[in-house]
Amino acid sequence: MTYRQQYALADGRDLFYYDLRAGQDRSAADRRELPETATASQIRWDPLFQEWSVIAGHRQSRTYKPPVDLCPLCPSRDGRQTEIPAADYDVAVFENRFPSLAGESAETFGVVEDFPFASGPGVGRCEVVCFTSDHDTSFAQLSPQHARTVIDALADRTAELSRTPGVEYVFCFENRGEEIGVTLSHPHGQIYGYPFVPPRMLRAAQAAAGYSAEHGSCLRCELLRREVEAGERVISRTEHWTALVPFAARWPYEARLVANRHVGSLPELTGDERDDLARSYLDLLRRFDRLFEPLVGSKTPYIAGWHQAPVRQLAGNWHLGAEVFTIRRAAGKLKYLAGSESGAAVWINDITPETAAARLRGDHSGDASG
Amino acid sequence: MTYRQQYALADGRDLFYYDLRAGQDRSAADRRELPETATASQIRWDPLFQEWSVIAGHRQSRTYKPPVDLCPLCPSRDGRQTEIPAADYDVAVFENRFPSLAGESAETFGVVEDFPFASGPGVGRCEVVCFTSDHDTSFAQLSPQHARTVIDALADRTAELSRTPGVEYVFCFENRGEEIGVTLSHPHGQIYGYPFVPPRMLRAAQAAAGYSAEHGSCLRCELLRREVEAGERVISRTEHWTALVPFAARWPYEARLVANRHVGSLPELTGDERDDLARSYLDLLRRFDRLFEPLVGSKTPYIAGWHQAPVRQLAGNWHLGAEVFTIRRAAGKLKYLAGSESGAAVWINDITPETAAARLRGDHSGDASG
Repeated sequence: MTYRQQYALADGRDLFYYDLRAGQDRSAADRRELPETATASQIRWDPLFQEWSVIAGHRQSRTYKPPVDLCPLCPSRDGRQTEIPAADYDVAVFENRFPSLAGESAETFGVVEDFPFASGPGVGRCEVVCFTSDHDTSFAQLSPQHARTVIDALADRTAELSRTPGVEYVFCFENRGEEIGVTLSHPHGQIYGYPFVPPRMLRAAQAAAGYSAEHGSCLRCELLRREVEAGERVISRTEHWTALVPFAARWPYEARLVANRHVGSLPELTGDERDDLARSYLDLLRRFDRLFEPLVGSKTPYIAGWHQAPVRQLAGNWHLGAEVFTIRRAAGKLKYLAGSESGAAVWINDITPETAAARLRGDHSGDASG
Repeated sequence: MTYRQQYALADGRDLFYYDLRAGQDRSAADRRELPETATASQIRWDPLFQEWSVIAGHRQSRTYKPPVDLCPLCPSRDGRQTEIPAADYDVAVFENRFPSLAGESAETFGVVEDFPFASGPGVGRCEVVCFTSDHDTSFAQLSPQHARTVIDALADRTAELSRTPGVEYVFCFENRGEEIGVTLSHPHGQIYGYPFVPPRMLRAAQAAAGYSAEHGSCLRCELLRREVEAGERVISRTEHWTALVPFAARWPYEARLVANRHVGSLPELTGDERDDLARSYLDLLRRFDRLFEPLVGSKTPYIAGWHQAPVRQLAGNWHLGAEVFTIRRAAGKLKYLAGSESGAAVWINDITPETAAARLRGDHSGDASG
């Protein structure tokens, strides 16, 4: 069981505590004097390259790598007021003070079109998920029980944001490591409620719908079946989850954690599936952290994201999975997104998926990279 | 006029010199003992997210930030043998020794499909374009005459690679700056001949074809007309070229340099258009270098790429442009591609295109970022 309590921050932003045990007192008030958050973001359509950008001009002045004694994600203690008023917490979620997307829209899509210029208000939601009150740890070091509480929090937020007018996709993700530009080192993730289905998810949803129309079955169920049969890219497998390196991986080390059952999003998972997910996900993150051992003083930087079903559009055929990838291709070497990736959207991957899977399994034979 | 001479490097790779004046002696032989380049790259299709990856497992051991006295792009002098055998050059182009894509295919697309696994040999071409023999300068500091020679070289290579069996798209680009992961600081660009149309270009080609079918005219001609009319995102305009920040820019500072005439690729440009392009492109790059003045000791990192027509597929409606963008969003602050960009393909841009255009024009009023 996960126990939720809801409060408001001084400027009216929502705050949620998710605790492992009932009866925790999280009622401490936010005593800061905060100006109301002003957001003025827009979504804009590029008619040539066919994608939305989020223009968030108000975010340039946001908090940038504050010293540790000013960490806004630590609990409020000793008279120091942070974003979390309580003196301790298990998992806490709050609305970002500098959101890229904020507010609701009665219409699902309030876009004004004056061809070739199409734009709309940047409605949606940006939330911060504090995985633990311990500043110096990481997701991979949480207990399975604590990780399960994080998963429950993500599922709860997904369900609630899916009911928010104007939100078309809920994306839960974690950026970990300075190499990825993370400005706060406290273990945390983010949740974006986008006012459109992101292009990468839209293409996957269209592919799944097309496959289903032709074959009457799920593309990702078939992909999973064939990957398990082939075996060489499978990292690990439990009753409910399979971790594998995708056949056409874009990143040097990239894994997908796929639900064995055909299920669309986190809120639909059973208790057993969530417990198993907590263990499987921790196992996968720890494999990433071991990749570059004995590299000293540096945890593997990674981006992790959940592939959930879109809220409405093409939601029917989706199959839930998570993605974890690192931008590190060897100790001391990073994979940069340069001309081919950023300019043409073609990823060049210097490590074969089969080599990556072997190394993530812990099999170092045939490893030429180091 | 640009004068071309063709030679072969010791391992058989092609080498081209493009000179401003006739009669330069570039005949010095490559006296190194080089093992033949072994490439074993593959293209692989992701059926879920619908895109090709290039898997180039042989590239992990490539040259990584060599000390300056070992720069492989400097001319060969004083007994030191580089990739360029001649003692001097204006512009030199050679096949990459560690190519992501190499070789030819008689079929345009030799993909083997065993659903859900589709893959093919990584045929194609990767070339390095040395803009100048001067190690310590940059493209922006070239003379207009020298820049015109670079443009002639790119046009010549585009024409030749477009005739190479298996090449479906020719992408000319430059990565500049350590912040973008550039391993060689000598001023240089690259040319990729892809065995498929890159996803970003494919979407643009499809959009152009759709627009043309509906309106009987060119999408980018209409975009250009409307942007010039609106004016607020236009940076500069000459007889043949217009520099502007796109309405839905993804990057903090991003510009497109669009041909005023409806023309599809570099080889089709007239001499006048090329001369004007050299001046316009230099002007644009210099504007990027001035963005973060008086930032000391650091040139603006950027990625520049040419949007040319695909070689065959949907080539008909294309309108030529270049793109230049920086990952720097303020002095000392970089824009990273994290969860939203890398995981969901949604770019969050903290600087409005109108602010970016004003700063690139040199108008610092209303500038809140610094």
